[in-house]
Amino acid sequence: MPEKIFAIKGDIIFTETNKQFSTYLQSFLVIKDGIVEGIYKILPEKFNGISVSDKGHALILPGFIDLHTHAAQFNQLGMGMDYKLIDWLSSYTFKEEERFSSEKYAEKIYRAFAEELINCGTTSAVIFSTIHKNSCDILCRILQEKKIPAYVGKVNMDVNCPSFLCENTAESLQETEEFINKWKDNLLIKPIITPRFAPTSSREQLKGLGDLAVKYNLPVQSHLAENKAEIAWVNELFPECGAYYKVYEQYNLYGQTKTLMAHCIHLTDAEIKHLAKIDVMPVHCPDSNMNLTSGIMPARKMLNEGINIGLGSDIGAGHELFMPNVMVRAIQSSKIYNMQHNEYKPLSLAEVFYMATKGCGKFFDNRGSLENGYQADFLVIDLPEYKQNASLEERLAYFVYSGEKKYIKECYANGKKIS
Amino acid sequence: MPEKIFAIKGDIIFTETNKQFSTYLQSFLVIKDGIVEGIYKILPEKFNGISVSDKGHALILPGFIDLHTHAAQFNQLGMGMDYKLIDWLSSYTFKEEERFSSEKYAEKIYRAFAEELINCGTTSAVIFSTIHKNSCDILCRILQEKKIPAYVGKVNMDVNCPSFLCENTAESLQETEEFINKWKDNLLIKPIITPRFAPTSSREQLKGLGDLAVKYNLPVQSHLAENKAEIAWVNELFPECGAYYKVYEQYNLYGQTKTLMAHCIHLTDAEIKHLAKIDVMPVHCPDSNMNLTSGIMPARKMLNEGINIGLGSDIGAGHELFMPNVMVRAIQSSKIYNMQHNEYKPLSLAEVFYMATKGCGKFFDNRGSLENGYQADFLVIDLPEYKQNASLEERLAYFVYSGEKKYIKECYANGKKIS
Repeated sequence: MPEKIFAIKGDIIFTETNKQFSTYLQSFLVIKDGIVEGIYKILPEKFNGISVSDKGHALILPGFIDLHTHAAQFNQLGMGMDYKLIDWLSSYTFKEEERFSSEKYAEKIYRAFAEELINCGTTSAVIFSTIHKNSCDILCRILQEKKIPAYVGKVNMDVNCPSFLCENTAESLQETEEFINKWKDNLLIKPIITPRFAPTSSREQLKGLGDLAVKYNLPVQSHLAENKAEIAWVNELFPECGAYYKVYEQYNLYGQTKTLMAHCIHLTDAEIKHLAKIDVMPVHCPDSNMNLTSGIMPARKMLNEGINIGLGSDIGAGHELFMPNVMVRAIQSSKIYNMQHNEYKPLSLAEVFYMATKGCGKFFDNRGSLENGYQADFLVIDLPEYKQNASLEERLAYFVYSGEKKYIKECYANGKKIS
Repeated sequence: MPEKIFAIKGDIIFTETNKQFSTYLQSFLVIKDGIVEGIYKILPEKFNGISVSDKGHALILPGFIDLHTHAAQFNQLGMGMDYKLIDWLSSYTFKEEERFSSEKYAEKIYRAFAEELINCGTTSAVIFSTIHKNSCDILCRILQEKKIPAYVGKVNMDVNCPSFLCENTAESLQETEEFINKWKDNLLIKPIITPRFAPTSSREQLKGLGDLAVKYNLPVQSHLAENKAEIAWVNELFPECGAYYKVYEQYNLYGQTKTLMAHCIHLTDAEIKHLAKIDVMPVHCPDSNMNLTSGIMPARKMLNEGINIGLGSDIGAGHELFMPNVMVRAIQSSKIYNMQHNEYKPLSLAEVFYMATKGCGKFFDNRGSLENGYQADFLVIDLPEYKQNASLEERLAYFVYSGEKKYIKECYANGKKIS
């Protein structure tokens, strides 16, 4: 019998597709070398003698995945919510990000951020840091120490930003390459190319970043079509491109390697159809979009085109890291869209749960599900006694809508207990 | 020196008006016989020797007030969220409410509800129970035991509802009067006349309830203009009235005594102007309105007319009792309204905080503020260490947007510690 095999028994629930939940009452989830080996109603004889932890009627579900979040904005939650995007950046966010020139401050806030990810049951994430390479290394080190699988981006910006955050283009690219080389072979923490967004990068910086993405075959993340004023600004800054997304595309930052684009609220129908054909995943950040009065992402329209949508907390424009709250906001957001566009029906619970688990997990290859062969990233959740008689799906719905972090009793990533 | 006088020292914040926060750093809140006596930077000599509890840099703020919540729906949070109002009632809610024919079940769920109110820092509430008088008495007894000031309504419904919840009209009115007589002289728990909504009451029941409201000078609560199908149904059922609100008005249930009307989403401009002139307070329930795809309440339009708007969790159509979350949703909801109606600017944090404290408190006379003479209903809130350097308003914003119940260290109602 191999040493690294064990089983957890409980009420198991996850989404293989976004159409419905897969449910396994009082079943054994068997983990072998950090990977889901199988789910069994009765434990087969070959597993005799392995460690089995019986969690009673606790829920066992995949850990949540946050595909768009700004670790450096963790200490500004709830600030500047009276502004829209551009003013919010200049009034609060840039000033807060400047504080990460201090490694001491970075250590403090990034540690609190990583601990909160685990409290929230977020078992992997794709993260923006700031321009500061040393602080970015600190974030990676803390995530590694906490055993949270993540992509981390050193942010790049060299125009249209305050002097205290404005990089020298050549140095920016050099530091980015150093950061890449430091982390690219790490098994847990991976670098991701991260121009903040088109307006704050020169053509030279965008070209250099696209070249690095291709050279090292690295994924890319940025922001796209969040706000109408932003789109107008991009069109002014890059008149030769003719569309916001083409700025990224022209510089090998839009699907040449796998790509995440946060928001994608104000894409045209043709741009949505184009998105469906390439390796670019839109990341829906509904709290952020409401908080900054950015707009309502047409999520149903994208699903109708076969697009796999990710979900992101987008703190600090979003105000919560807890992904169940983000799921609820995604449903609420789709209901608001439905009020205005009756032909696009609201998202279902299975659809948003899938987004925050297996859907987001596609960016990581085999995360976000409890099917055989997936990384064993999962949560053990105890609900109040008066919920015990509800069906498994009802208990899941209760947890997503009204659950609390405190109900998460255990959190595993890669089969290892991380809380 | 009187015995019932004490002081709490900390960083005090509340809203005297909805325009701005009143802030008192490192000040003493003096409580005398359950009433706010004053706030002092330096404790006057006359208070020498009173008990002073120094809370360091904890926030001290008014307890929250929830003006519309269904205690009997506490165990169905997150259920049936794919439905709109009428189907949601028949698919989930009526079945759940039927369970309160069991006093044992009522005892269990109402106790959990009351405990959760305190966990949430909700120090007073206006509550729907069900048609079941005995269970309704249980709810009142538990609230009294927990020392939570509240109005509680025995629900009335005698038509257009399942047989298991359909009352005999005469019995319904008799039981309601018994319930009134049992609680009307209680200092903490008060009865409120509670027809569920126009469609589920006969003309006879509405008339009887209006008569009771006038006879005992009792306040009234119900639902108004939540959903377009509901409005059409009311117009069909009461063609002689010509408008939804006039059904209530005709039977002395709309401002003849002080009145709460939940939702008020789809009122005409003339109906809003009329509302501004009478003693009817609309209660905004933004989570509920998004969850049931009911619509977006035009809160700014109402504020512009000088209307005092209350705030409600409206569980189980809303999914959270924690009023800071409801405040955030009220702001988000107003931003969505602003996206469509640029002339109506979003609500500010001070405006929604005022709604959930002093605004709602007007229904209780002198609750919801920490001004002299107000009931001493307040919370002591400890934030994480890394928030300590922020300004008092910033810390309040953090707590409202991203705070958690666990930060509420102490909760007082009428000057008594209730948690």
